[in-house]
Amino acid sequence: MNVTPWTVEGTIDYSKLMDKFGTKPLTPELLSRLEKLAGSIPPMIRRGFFFSHRDFDAVLKETENGEGFFLYTGRGPSGSMHIGHLSSFIITKWFQEAFGANLYIEITDDEKFLHKKNKSLEEIEEQAKSDILDIIALGFNPDKTFIFRDTEYIKNTYKLMIKIAKKVTFSTAKAVFGFTGETNIGMIFYPSYQIVPTFFEKKRCLIPAAIDQDPYWRIQRDIAESFGYKKAAAIHSKFIPPLQGFEGKMSSSLPETSIYLADSPDVVKKKINKYAFSGGQPTVEEHKRLGGNPDVDVSFAYLRIFFEEDDKKLREMEESYRNGDLLTGELKAYTIDKINSFLEKHRENRKKAEKLYDKFLYDGELARSMWNKTYS
Amino acid sequence: MNVTPWTVEGTIDYSKLMDKFGTKPLTPELLSRLEKLAGSIPPMIRRGFFFSHRDFDAVLKETENGEGFFLYTGRGPSGSMHIGHLSSFIITKWFQEAFGANLYIEITDDEKFLHKKNKSLEEIEEQAKSDILDIIALGFNPDKTFIFRDTEYIKNTYKLMIKIAKKVTFSTAKAVFGFTGETNIGMIFYPSYQIVPTFFEKKRCLIPAAIDQDPYWRIQRDIAESFGYKKAAAIHSKFIPPLQGFEGKMSSSLPETSIYLADSPDVVKKKINKYAFSGGQPTVEEHKRLGGNPDVDVSFAYLRIFFEEDDKKLREMEESYRNGDLLTGELKAYTIDKINSFLEKHRENRKKAEKLYDKFLYDGELARSMWNKTYS
Repeated sequence: MNVTPWTVEGTIDYSKLMDKFGTKPLTPELLSRLEKLAGSIPPMIRRGFFFSHRDFDAVLKETENGEGFFLYTGRGPSGSMHIGHLSSFIITKWFQEAFGANLYIEITDDEKFLHKKNKSLEEIEEQAKSDILDIIALGFNPDKTFIFRDTEYIKNTYKLMIKIAKKVTFSTAKAVFGFTGETNIGMIFYPSYQIVPTFFEKKRCLIPAAIDQDPYWRIQRDIAESFGYKKAAAIHSKFIPPLQGFEGKMSSSLPETSIYLADSPDVVKKKINKYAFSGGQPTVEEHKRLGGNPDVDVSFAYLRIFFEEDDKKLREMEESYRNGDLLTGELKAYTIDKINSFLEKHRENRKKAEKLYDKFLYDGELARSMWNKTYS
Repeated sequence: MNVTPWTVEGTIDYSKLMDKFGTKPLTPELLSRLEKLAGSIPPMIRRGFFFSHRDFDAVLKETENGEGFFLYTGRGPSGSMHIGHLSSFIITKWFQEAFGANLYIEITDDEKFLHKKNKSLEEIEEQAKSDILDIIALGFNPDKTFIFRDTEYIKNTYKLMIKIAKKVTFSTAKAVFGFTGETNIGMIFYPSYQIVPTFFEKKRCLIPAAIDQDPYWRIQRDIAESFGYKKAAAIHSKFIPPLQGFEGKMSSSLPETSIYLADSPDVVKKKINKYAFSGGQPTVEEHKRLGGNPDVDVSFAYLRIFFEEDDKKLREMEESYRNGDLLTGELKAYTIDKINSFLEKHRENRKKAEKLYDKFLYDGELARSMWNKTYS
């Protein structure tokens, strides 16, 4: 397996990844403390899709003692958003609602432009605007959320960026990110920007993101205290499996691996029916006799991660699939319906998001205060 | 010898440096074309202190055919300015007056902060303000000159910076600048910023600077045309010798090597008398018998480069020193007077410069138009 912020390949062994990155498991003890504070815990956490963390125990403690925390996540606008991009945002929204925390969403237009050989900055900017509407559609609090594009907010961040950059040698960046002689000098500087928002407030920063982003937080945690800030906390998710099964992650550039947020009901139906890897048996007869395997079934995985909130219903489907009563076709039909009703609602929200764009980026309470701050 | 933008060591063999960097000599033919266009040529050029170039012939041609050019130079605000920092500005001012060209002066506060281990950004910013007053005091045209600090003008340049950075690999930057694993990631990105101003206008950019800055222009010349801009032209100066003699260059951090612009008349007198390497003989008697050597005499070098505009007077002094009539003490006394009257006038101009600060940075005709432009 190969996991960096730019590549996720192979069958992922998440325990090994925790060992390699030096992160800790989200234990039942931590989850019960979270539940006590929040009243409930969301499916993605209770079902183990978020599985690992750094200093999440400190976040809980600082919530228990009234200090609180702030939230930070982001989006690299390199191609159309698919459901694989939603998990961090959905869990971040849950944290914002549960704890009333401020949230900063970095749109890394600079990084995506620097990374994507064949994309112009103008294409990336177009994509960024589109992605921001998809993010707003998820329903964040417009007065407690600041969405910013790196290239636009640079005047407020550049001084802090160079202070961060001064503390990171090429050797360190190379070891953490795997840079080579072919890496362009913009990519080498970029990690400084991704660290900046962890210093937006003096409170601890909690970052919900897939585990491939962890290298940035490792560097942040090495230098944060020398700046008078707290080490960032993170909770790490697994990767949403691509339609073809549990290897690598969904790719924006390979449409047949992903369900895009813009996919029509027909396209969703075709993609799930044609591509979604099935844990079922080759024939109905065998399926009824031998049963299906929900553990490798991609449709079932999507229900578990996103689309079936009801634990009881999910458990019944799992049992029924395992013992052969629930057929692959039926499981897929149910999944298609669930995805399509989610996407239909999403597209309605996305239309309303256009009116909220300026609020999240410039005029909302948090946004206004952020444009008046210069970090250094 | 070792010459990079951050280190100048050893006895400099300027012919070898031209070979190594791949630059061309400023020939008598070029100088006579320049003289024809400008009416005259300044001492620093006619006496060979500016000795090398890139595409200066193209600048002359584009001046002859009416296209014109613009000027770009800069200053790294790492310590108090000394006379070694003046040569590029003095020659740039001459070009601006002779040709009415726009001039951009980059104050590289980011680079100096990133490079200087023990300087805070706040110290660098203080120094930058002070240096800008010294620069303004030299008498540029406030409506045709834009002085900008990198950290402040970043919002207008960042998009272009990342476009430049995307075309420069670490291998290239390493080969050109000698970066190592210990180099911080800010320094590695920085060359992108120094290239940005060469794209401020579509005309060719002429950069008067010491030859140690040439590596930046080498990269610029590799990529400029792919952006639809002209390759930058440069004229390169030698280094002002430190007081101790013709090795390395004056250092801001070693006061005994330099004459600072803020040195009082007494300090100048002491420094020249105590430190200025002399081409004279150990005793007056020997000096009268054997003569002095102006070629290695630092006082004489300062007269030749800066302080004696009159060619005839300079030639007479040279002869008189060589044949032993002019004594070292007399040469030093003359040099001290010349430096002190220059510095006295400079300090008067520097006081007046405070009122012009905003004009050069924000309100002058060129400055205003630059704040309304975003480069990408």
